[in-house]
Amino acid sequence: MEERKEKIDLKSSIRDIPHFPKHGVIFKDITTLLNDNRCFRYAVSEMVEHFKDERIDKVVSAESRGFIFGSVIAHKLHAGFVPLRKPGKLPHETIREEYETEYSKDAFEIHRDAIKEGENVLIVDDLLATGGTMEAATKLVERLGGNIVGIAILIELGFLKGRDRLTKYEVFTLVNYEEEE
Amino acid sequence: MEERKEKIDLKSSIRDIPHFPKHGVIFKDITTLLNDNRCFRYAVSEMVEHFKDERIDKVVSAESRGFIFGSVIAHKLHAGFVPLRKPGKLPHETIREEYETEYSKDAFEIHRDAIKEGENVLIVDDLLATGGTMEAATKLVERLGGNIVGIAILIELGFLKGRDRLTKYEVFTLVNYEEEE
Repeated sequence: MEERKEKIDLKSSIRDIPHFPKHGVIFKDITTLLNDNRCFRYAVSEMVEHFKDERIDKVVSAESRGFIFGSVIAHKLHAGFVPLRKPGKLPHETIREEYETEYSKDAFEIHRDAIKEGENVLIVDDLLATGGTMEAATKLVERLGGNIVGIAILIELGFLKGRDRLTKYEVFTLVNYEEEE
Repeated sequence: MEERKEKIDLKSSIRDIPHFPKHGVIFKDITTLLNDNRCFRYAVSEMVEHFKDERIDKVVSAESRGFIFGSVIAHKLHAGFVPLRKPGKLPHETIREEYETEYSKDAFEIHRDAIKEGENVLIVDDLLATGGTMEAATKLVERLGGNIVGIAILIELGFLKGRDRLTKYEVFTLVNYEEEE
Protein backbone atom coordinates (compact mmCIF):
# COMPACT_ATOMS: atom_id res chain seq x y z
CA MET A 1 0.00 0.00 0.00
CA GLU A 2 1.19 3.49 -0.79
CA GLU A 3 -0.64 5.00 2.21
CA ARG A 4 1.14 6.33 5.26
CA LYS A 5 0.49 4.29 8.39
CA GLU A 6 0.54 7.13 10.91
CA LYS A 7 -2.65 6.99 12.96
CA ILE A 8 -5.00 9.97 12.59
CA ASP A 9 -7.84 10.85 14.95
CA LEU A 10 -10.63 11.20 12.39
CA LYS A 11 -13.17 12.31 14.99
CA SER A 12 -11.28 15.54 15.50
CA SER A 13 -11.62 16.31 11.77
CA ILE A 14 -15.43 15.93 11.82
CA ARG A 15 -17.35 19.10 12.65
CA ASP A 16 -20.37 19.09 14.95
CA ILE A 17 -23.25 21.28 13.73
CA PRO A 18 -25.88 21.65 16.45
CA HIS A 19 -29.55 21.78 15.41
CA PHE A 20 -29.02 20.71 11.77
CA PRO A 21 -31.08 19.70 9.85
CA LYS A 22 -33.54 20.14 12.71
CA HIS A 23 -33.64 21.29 16.33
CA GLY A 24 -32.06 18.91 18.84
CA VAL A 25 -29.94 17.01 16.30
CA ILE A 26 -26.14 17.31 16.16
CA PHE A 27 -25.14 16.92 12.53
CA LYS A 28 -21.77 15.31 11.81
CA ASP A 29 -20.22 17.44 9.07
CA ILE A 30 -17.62 15.44 7.11
CA THR A 31 -16.71 18.28 4.73
CA THR A 32 -13.93 19.27 7.15
CA LEU A 33 -12.50 15.74 6.96
CA LEU A 34 -12.69 15.69 3.15
CA ASN A 35 -11.09 19.13 3.00
CA ASP A 36 -7.98 17.82 4.75
CA ASN A 37 -6.16 15.60 2.28
CA ARG A 38 -4.37 13.69 5.08
CA CYS A 39 -7.63 12.79 6.83
CA PHE A 40 -9.42 11.92 3.60
CA ARG A 41 -6.58 9.63 2.50
CA TYR A 42 -6.35 8.01 5.90
CA ALA A 43 -10.08 7.23 6.00
CA VAL A 44 -9.97 5.74 2.49
CA SER A 45 -6.91 3.65 3.25
CA GLU A 46 -8.45 2.21 6.42
CA MET A 47 -11.56 1.11 4.51
CA VAL A 48 -9.53 -0.33 1.65
CA GLU A 49 -7.17 -2.12 4.03
CA HIS A 50 -10.07 -3.87 5.71
CA PHE A 51 -11.46 -5.34 2.48
CA LYS A 52 -8.33 -5.64 0.35
CA ASP A 53 -8.11 -9.45 0.56
CA GLU A 54 -11.65 -9.92 -0.76
CA ARG A 55 -12.47 -10.04 -4.45
CA ILE A 56 -14.82 -7.09 -4.94
CA ASP A 57 -16.52 -6.81 -8.34
CA LYS A 58 -18.71 -3.81 -7.59
CA VAL A 59 -18.86 -1.03 -5.03
CA VAL A 60 -22.37 0.33 -4.48
CA SER A 61 -23.09 3.74 -2.92
CA ALA A 62 -26.11 5.99 -2.52
CA GLU A 63 -26.30 9.60 -3.61
CA SER A 64 -25.04 12.12 -2.81
CA ARG A 65 -22.44 11.92 -0.04
CA GLY A 66 -22.08 8.17 -0.40
CA PHE A 67 -20.57 8.70 -3.84
CA ILE A 68 -17.56 10.47 -2.33
CA PHE A 69 -16.13 7.48 -0.50
CA GLY A 70 -17.76 4.87 -2.74
CA SER A 71 -16.06 5.95 -5.93
CA VAL A 72 -12.60 6.20 -4.34
CA ILE A 73 -12.93 2.79 -2.71
CA ALA A 74 -14.16 1.27 -6.00
CA HIS A 75 -11.18 2.75 -7.78
CA LYS A 76 -8.67 1.54 -5.19
CA LEU A 77 -10.15 -1.98 -5.12
CA HIS A 78 -10.24 -2.15 -8.96
CA ALA A 79 -14.01 -2.60 -8.85
CA GLY A 80 -16.79 -1.06 -10.91
CA PHE A 81 -18.83 1.69 -9.26
CA VAL A 82 -22.62 1.44 -9.03
CA PRO A 83 -24.68 4.48 -7.96
CA LEU A 84 -27.96 4.22 -6.08
CA ARG A 85 -30.08 7.24 -6.90
CA LYS A 86 -33.30 8.93 -5.90
CA PRO A 87 -36.32 8.03 -8.08
CA GLY A 88 -36.25 9.31 -11.64
CA LYS A 89 -32.52 10.05 -11.80
CA LEU A 90 -31.25 6.82 -13.36
CA PRO A 91 -32.13 6.78 -17.06
CA HIS A 92 -32.31 3.04 -17.84
CA GLU A 93 -34.43 0.22 -16.42
CA THR A 94 -34.37 0.24 -12.61
CA ILE A 95 -35.69 -1.50 -9.50
CA ARG A 96 -36.69 0.48 -6.41
CA GLU A 97 -36.70 0.17 -2.60
CA GLU A 98 -38.38 2.57 -0.22
CA TYR A 99 -36.82 3.45 3.12
CA GLU A 100 -37.20 5.71 6.13
CA THR A 101 -34.43 7.83 7.62
CA GLU A 102 -34.32 9.82 10.86
CA TYR A 103 -36.00 12.66 9.00
CA SER A 104 -37.93 11.43 5.98
CA LYS A 105 -39.40 8.71 3.78
CA ASP A 106 -37.81 8.23 0.39
CA ALA A 107 -36.62 5.62 -2.11
CA PHE A 108 -33.52 4.52 -3.99
CA GLU A 109 -33.24 3.01 -7.43
CA ILE A 110 -30.54 0.91 -9.05
CA HIS A 111 -30.08 0.02 -12.71
CA ARG A 112 -31.26 -3.52 -13.25
CA ASP A 113 -28.13 -4.36 -15.25
CA ALA A 114 -25.68 -2.79 -12.75
CA ILE A 115 -24.92 -6.02 -10.88
CA LYS A 116 -24.73 -9.51 -12.34
CA GLU A 117 -25.87 -12.63 -10.50
CA GLY A 118 -23.13 -13.82 -8.15
CA GLU A 119 -20.95 -10.71 -8.27
CA ASN A 120 -19.22 -9.72 -5.05
CA VAL A 121 -20.40 -6.36 -3.76
CA LEU A 122 -19.09 -3.94 -1.15
CA ILE A 123 -21.57 -1.26 -0.04
CA VAL A 124 -19.99 2.04 1.04
CA ASP A 125 -21.55 5.04 2.76
CA ASP A 126 -20.51 7.99 4.88
CA LEU A 127 -23.03 7.52 7.68
CA LEU A 128 -24.87 4.73 9.48
CA ALA A 129 -27.76 6.24 11.46
CA THR A 130 -31.01 4.25 11.82
CA GLY A 131 -29.89 1.88 9.04
CA GLY A 132 -32.88 2.56 6.80
CA THR A 133 -30.96 3.61 3.73
CA MET A 134 -28.39 0.85 4.19
CA GLU A 135 -31.09 -1.78 4.52
CA ALA A 136 -32.64 -0.53 1.27
CA ALA A 137 -29.21 -0.75 -0.38
CA THR A 138 -28.71 -4.37 0.72
CA LYS A 139 -32.17 -5.31 -0.60
CA LEU A 140 -31.48 -3.76 -3.99
CA VAL A 141 -28.15 -5.56 -4.31
CA GLU A 142 -29.62 -8.92 -3.30
CA ARG A 143 -32.65 -8.56 -5.59
CA LEU A 144 -30.14 -8.36 -8.44
CA GLY A 145 -28.33 -11.49 -7.22
CA GLY A 146 -25.29 -9.71 -5.79
CA ASN A 147 -23.30 -11.29 -2.95
CA ILE A 148 -22.70 -8.68 -0.24
CA VAL A 149 -19.13 -9.13 0.99
CA GLY A 150 -19.40 -6.28 3.47
CA ILE A 151 -20.44 -2.76 4.30
CA ALA A 152 -17.89 0.02 4.86
CA ILE A 153 -19.03 3.23 6.52
CA LEU A 154 -17.17 6.27 7.76
CA ILE A 155 -19.37 7.28 10.72
CA GLU A 156 -21.61 5.12 12.89
CA LEU A 157 -24.14 6.77 15.18
CA GLY A 158 -24.09 3.76 17.50
CA PHE A 159 -26.87 5.09 19.72
CA LEU A 160 -29.34 4.81 16.81
CA LYS A 161 -28.72 1.03 16.58
CA GLY A 162 -28.65 0.91 12.77
CA ARG A 163 -26.27 -2.05 13.01
CA ASP A 164 -29.09 -4.17 14.45
CA ARG A 165 -30.81 -4.12 11.04
CA LEU A 166 -27.66 -5.38 9.30
CA THR A 167 -26.68 -8.40 11.41
CA LYS A 168 -26.33 -10.65 8.34
CA TYR A 169 -23.39 -8.59 7.10
CA GLU A 170 -19.92 -7.57 8.08
CA VAL A 171 -20.29 -3.88 8.93
CA PHE A 172 -16.98 -2.01 9.20
CA THR A 173 -17.19 1.55 10.53
CA LEU A 174 -14.31 3.92 11.15
CA VAL A 175 -15.69 6.44 13.62
CA ASN A 176 -18.32 5.49 16.19
CA TYR A 177 -20.40 7.84 18.34
CA GLU A 178 -21.73 5.55 21.08
CA GLU A 179 -23.84 8.21 22.76
CA GLU A 180 -25.81 11.20 21.65
CA GLU A 181 -23.62 14.12 22.65
CA MET B 1 1.84 5.94 -12.58
CA GLU B 2 0.39 2.55 -11.79
CA GLU B 3 -2.23 2.81 -14.56
CA ARG B 4 -2.12 0.75 -17.70
CA LYS B 5 -1.47 2.79 -20.83
CA GLU B 6 -3.61 0.78 -23.25
CA LYS B 7 -5.99 3.15 -25.01
CA ILE B 8 -9.68 2.60 -24.36
CA ASP B 9 -12.53 3.99 -26.46
CA LEU B 10 -14.58 5.57 -23.67
CA LYS B 11 -17.37 6.62 -26.01
CA SER B 12 -18.29 3.00 -26.57
CA SER B 13 -18.77 2.56 -22.81
CA ILE B 14 -21.26 5.47 -22.55
CA ARG B 15 -24.88 4.53 -23.13
CA ASP B 16 -27.23 6.72 -25.19
CA ILE B 17 -30.72 7.09 -23.67
CA PRO B 18 -33.08 8.74 -26.16
CA HIS B 19 -35.72 11.15 -24.81
CA PHE B 20 -34.31 11.42 -21.26
CA PRO B 21 -34.94 13.50 -19.21
CA LYS B 22 -37.23 15.00 -21.87
CA HIS B 23 -38.38 14.37 -25.43
CA GLY B 24 -35.80 15.08 -28.12
CA VAL B 25 -32.76 14.89 -25.83
CA ILE B 26 -30.23 12.03 -25.97
CA PHE B 27 -28.96 11.51 -22.45
CA LYS B 28 -25.38 10.32 -22.06
CA ASP B 29 -25.50 7.61 -19.38
CA ILE B 30 -22.11 7.19 -17.71
CA THR B 31 -23.22 4.42 -15.33
CA THR B 32 -22.10 1.87 -17.92
CA LEU B 33 -18.63 3.43 -17.97
CA LEU B 34 -18.42 3.47 -14.15
CA ASN B 35 -19.63 -0.13 -14.01
CA ASP B 36 -16.62 -1.28 -16.04
CA ASN B 37 -13.59 -1.02 -13.81
CA ARG B 38 -11.21 -0.79 -16.80
CA CYS B 39 -13.06 2.17 -18.32
CA PHE B 40 -13.49 3.94 -14.97
CA ARG B 41 -9.78 3.59 -14.17
CA TYR B 42 -8.78 4.71 -17.64
CA ALA B 43 -10.93 7.86 -17.46
CA VAL B 44 -9.54 8.75 -14.03
CA SER B 45 -5.96 8.16 -15.09
CA GLU B 46 -6.33 10.37 -18.17
CA MET B 47 -7.64 13.26 -16.06
CA VAL B 48 -4.96 12.79 -13.41
CA GLU B 49 -2.22 12.51 -16.02
CA HIS B 50 -3.24 15.84 -17.53
CA PHE B 51 -2.95 17.78 -14.26
CA LYS B 52 -0.33 15.76 -12.38
CA ASP B 53 2.44 18.35 -12.75
CA GLU B 54 0.33 21.11 -11.16
CA ARG B 55 0.13 21.65 -7.43
CA ILE B 56 -3.56 21.12 -6.66
CA ASP B 57 -4.71 21.98 -3.13
CA LYS B 58 -8.41 21.35 -3.60
CA VAL B 59 -10.64 19.53 -6.05
CA VAL B 60 -14.14 21.01 -6.29
CA SER B 61 -17.14 19.09 -7.66
CA ALA B 62 -20.89 19.57 -7.75
CA GLU B 63 -23.43 17.04 -6.51
CA SER B 64 -24.34 14.38 -7.36
CA ARG B 65 -22.57 12.81 -10.31
CA GLY B 66 -19.68 15.27 -10.10
CA PHE B 67 -18.69 13.73 -6.78
CA ILE B 68 -17.87 10.41 -8.47
CA PHE B 69 -14.92 11.66 -10.50
CA GLY B 70 -14.11 14.58 -8.22
CA SER B 71 -13.37 12.52 -5.14
CA VAL B 72 -11.19 10.00 -6.99
CA ILE B 73 -9.21 12.75 -8.70
CA ALA B 74 -8.77 14.59 -5.38
CA HIS B 75 -7.51 11.40 -3.79
CA LYS B 76 -5.09 10.63 -6.61
CA LEU B 77 -3.71 14.20 -6.68
CA HIS B 78 -3.36 14.26 -2.86
CA ALA B 79 -5.75 17.20 -2.68
CA GLY B 80 -8.66 17.95 -0.35
CA PHE B 81 -12.15 17.42 -1.75
CA VAL B 82 -14.72 20.24 -1.69
CA PRO B 83 -18.38 19.50 -2.49
CA LEU B 84 -20.72 22.02 -4.11
CA ARG B 85 -24.26 21.27 -3.03
CA LYS B 86 -27.83 22.31 -3.70
CA PRO B 87 -29.18 24.99 -1.34
CA GLY B 88 -29.73 23.91 2.26
CA LYS B 89 -27.56 20.78 2.14
CA LEU B 90 -24.29 22.18 3.51
CA PRO B 91 -24.58 22.71 7.25
CA HIS B 92 -22.07 25.49 7.92
CA GLU B 93 -21.75 29.05 6.58
CA THR B 94 -22.04 29.12 2.78
CA ILE B 95 -22.03 31.37 -0.25
CA ARG B 96 -24.36 30.73 -3.20
CA GLU B 97 -24.46 31.10 -7.00
CA GLU B 98 -27.51 30.59 -9.17
CA TYR B 99 -27.27 28.99 -12.61
CA GLU B 100 -29.35 27.74 -15.50
CA THR B 101 -28.95 24.35 -17.15
CA GLU B 102 -30.51 22.93 -20.30
CA TYR B 103 -33.54 21.98 -18.21
CA SER B 104 -33.83 24.11 -15.11
CA LYS B 105 -32.82 27.01 -12.88
CA ASP B 106 -31.08 26.16 -9.63
CA ALA B 107 -28.21 27.12 -7.33
CA PHE B 108 -25.08 25.72 -5.74
CA GLU B 109 -23.56 26.50 -2.38
CA ILE B 110 -20.03 26.09 -1.05
CA HIS B 111 -18.80 26.29 2.52
CA ARG B 112 -17.15 29.65 3.06
CA ASP B 113 -14.16 28.01 4.76
CA ALA B 114 -13.70 25.28 2.14
CA ILE B 115 -11.07 27.15 0.11
CA LYS B 116 -8.40 29.47 1.43
CA GLU B 117 -7.21 32.59 -0.41
CA GLY B 118 -4.61 31.62 -3.01
CA GLU B 119 -5.19 27.86 -2.97
CA ASN B 120 -4.89 26.05 -6.29
CA VAL B 121 -8.17 24.50 -7.36
CA LEU B 122 -9.10 21.92 -9.99
CA ILE B 123 -12.82 21.73 -10.82
CA VAL B 124 -14.06 18.29 -11.89
CA ASP B 125 -17.38 17.26 -13.38
CA ASP B 126 -18.85 14.49 -15.49
CA LEU B 127 -20.57 16.67 -18.10
CA LEU B 128 -20.10 20.01 -19.84
CA ALA B 129 -23.37 20.97 -21.52
CA THR B 130 -24.35 24.66 -21.68
CA GLY B 131 -21.69 25.52 -19.10
CA GLY B 132 -24.13 27.02 -16.59
CA THR B 133 -23.22 24.83 -13.65
CA MET B 134 -19.52 25.05 -14.40
CA GLU B 135 -19.67 28.85 -14.62
CA ALA B 136 -21.37 28.91 -11.20
CA ALA B 137 -18.63 26.65 -9.84
CA THR B 138 -15.86 28.95 -11.11
CA LYS B 139 -17.58 31.98 -9.54
CA LEU B 140 -17.89 30.26 -6.16
CA VAL B 141 -14.23 29.25 -6.17
CA GLU B 142 -13.06 32.72 -7.17
CA ARG B 143 -15.28 34.50 -4.64
CA LEU B 144 -13.39 32.51 -1.99
CA GLY B 145 -10.03 33.56 -3.45
CA GLY B 146 -9.20 30.22 -5.07
CA ASN B 147 -6.91 30.08 -8.11
CA ILE B 148 -8.49 27.87 -10.78
CA VAL B 149 -5.72 25.76 -12.29
CA GLY B 150 -8.07 23.97 -14.64
CA ILE B 151 -11.32 22.18 -15.28
CA ALA B 152 -11.46 18.43 -15.95
CA ILE B 153 -14.62 16.95 -17.41
CA LEU B 154 -15.49 13.50 -18.69
CA ILE B 155 -18.01 14.40 -21.41
CA GLU B 156 -18.29 17.58 -23.49
CA LEU B 157 -21.44 18.22 -25.52
CA GLY B 158 -19.51 20.42 -27.92
CA PHE B 159 -22.61 21.46 -29.86
CA LEU B 160 -23.95 23.28 -26.79
CA LYS B 161 -20.87 25.57 -26.72
CA GLY B 162 -20.43 25.48 -22.93
CA ARG B 163 -16.70 25.97 -23.45
CA ASP B 164 -17.36 29.51 -24.74
CA ARG B 165 -18.35 30.55 -21.19
CA LEU B 166 -15.08 29.24 -19.76
CA THR B 167 -12.47 30.81 -22.04
CA LYS B 168 -10.41 32.08 -19.08
CA TYR B 169 -9.64 28.52 -18.00
CA GLU B 170 -7.92 25.40 -19.24
CA VAL B 171 -10.79 23.04 -19.93
CA PHE B 172 -9.75 19.41 -20.40
CA THR B 173 -12.46 17.02 -21.60
CA LEU B 174 -12.09 13.33 -22.37
CA VAL B 175 -15.03 12.55 -24.65
CA ASN B 176 -16.45 15.14 -27.02
CA TYR B 177 -19.74 14.96 -28.91
CA GLU B 178 -19.34 17.62 -31.59
CA GLU B 179 -22.81 17.22 -33.04
CA GLU B 180 -26.21 16.39 -31.68
CA GLU B 181 -26.72 12.79 -32.77
